[in-house]
Amino acid sequence: MARDLRKRLRPSAEASHSCSAACFSYTLIGGLGLKGDHMTAHGHSTTAARPFVVGIAGGSGSGKTTIASRLVENLGSEIAVLIEQDSYYRDLSTLSFDERSAVNFDHPDAIEIPLILAQLDGLCRGETIAKPRYDFAQHARSRETDRVVPRPILVLEGILVLADPELRKRLDLKVFVDTAADIRLIRRIRRDLEQRGRSFEQIRRQYYDTVRPMHLAFVEPSKRHADVIIPEGGQNRVALDLLLGRIREFLRTYTGPGASTI
Amino acid sequence: MARDLRKRLRPSAEASHSCSAACFSYTLIGGLGLKGDHMTAHGHSTTAARPFVVGIAGGSGSGKTTIASRLVENLGSEIAVLIEQDSYYRDLSTLSFDERSAVNFDHPDAIEIPLILAQLDGLCRGETIAKPRYDFAQHARSRETDRVVPRPILVLEGILVLADPELRKRLDLKVFVDTAADIRLIRRIRRDLEQRGRSFEQIRRQYYDTVRPMHLAFVEPSKRHADVIIPEGGQNRVALDLLLGRIREFLRTYTGPGASTI
Repeated sequence: MARDLRKRLRPSAEASHSCSAACFSYTLIGGLGLKGDHMTAHGHSTTAARPFVVGIAGGSGSGKTTIASRLVENLGSEIAVLIEQDSYYRDLSTLSFDERSAVNFDHPDAIEIPLILAQLDGLCRGETIAKPRYDFAQHARSRETDRVVPRPILVLEGILVLADPELRKRLDLKVFVDTAADIRLIRRIRRDLEQRGRSFEQIRRQYYDTVRPMHLAFVEPSKRHADVIIPEGGQNRVALDLLLGRIREFLRTYTGPGASTI
Repeated sequence: MARDLRKRLRPSAEASHSCSAACFSYTLIGGLGLKGDHMTAHGHSTTAARPFVVGIAGGSGSGKTTIASRLVENLGSEIAVLIEQDSYYRDLSTLSFDERSAVNFDHPDAIEIPLILAQLDGLCRGETIAKPRYDFAQHARSRETDRVVPRPILVLEGILVLADPELRKRLDLKVFVDTAADIRLIRRIRRDLEQRGRSFEQIRRQYYDTVRPMHLAFVEPSKRHADVIIPEGGQNRVALDLLLGRIREFLRTYTGPGASTI
């Protein structure tokens, strides 16, 4: 009886682990018994050799960045790394400044998604990547990059991370931070007035021209792909504990890239 | 460094534990060092002596019962117990059958909420309760009751469990299962036709008269109290793992009623 209970309490790390090619090859190693672990009824290893990828999406001003940052802070920088979709804006340095300013930055085409995919896959294989850095003032990719070493937990954050089917395939946990449109708007106005030196007229025009239509076309519909929806992101401690609990359970069985730091 | 990391990985069981009176008295015992544990910066014990109460709400047909049942199944009956709001329909045996049939069963007044509160508090104090049993055919409380012994995890499930402020105070984790109205309706029609022997005309009338208006008045607005929203409940394995991960983390520090079975 006691044994039964322990079995029930044992984390099932890979029960919902997305079976990408990388995952399968690692699982096979486990299945061959090279690490001494055994397979579950679903043919998965009970240890996890591929990092756990959490995707956190939500509209501009939803609080997704806050919850993603607090997740990484709580786990610590040796366990988790934050990857922001905003780092992957396409380089527009061949366009004139006026042309760059006219680009619709809320459309998926503004993001170099193939590079996100390649770098996520690299991290999952244990490779160090050179994450691009974006210069928002110049609307161009900076010459500097950020070195990111593989960690057991990868947190991918951005308005469109649940909107792309290839990105979704990489995510073990799909989170959508859902906040009322008026609250998101008033936060955005404040940020753009106080931190980005824009006039209310510029903010208003951008909101009507691109922010709102792109939200309705791409961000809001991506909510239906979420495994879980968090209302009012940043202030929700219980939801943060929920994510942390699941991640800590994963970490107990993790043997892949970056596992030595756990 | 390694010590720091372990600290970060240590579960913070009471970080979001709802501070009911019962919780405070137990926490104080921990604080006095009677169990040899210590307090966190927030004045909480790092062990948990009060059961963890999960509330799962959602509209009729949302899949909340499925996810609540799967949660309890996965944890096992010695760890978790399911408490259904439907067991607490008020006894209408003093009314005639026709009068009973005319009652609005989707209104909060149809539920004996003070009894749910008293029995939840009893379980949290380590007492065994006699849970009422409801006879849906007779619209009356059965003479039999169900004996429920205290368990570390109490799962309270029902359409209105997030709608009552006193009930909400007892919940450590507030979950709302969110499913589109048309999907909920088609499931309800099927259930009532196949399992409850009702005609489509009866189902249609009840839907317009009470189910839909009560959903809009009480159930849907209670969603804003949720810590986390689960889309399409029953089929969502990732969301189930999320709840299980958090609960297993809680169980690692639990010392209260029913802890001997962990």
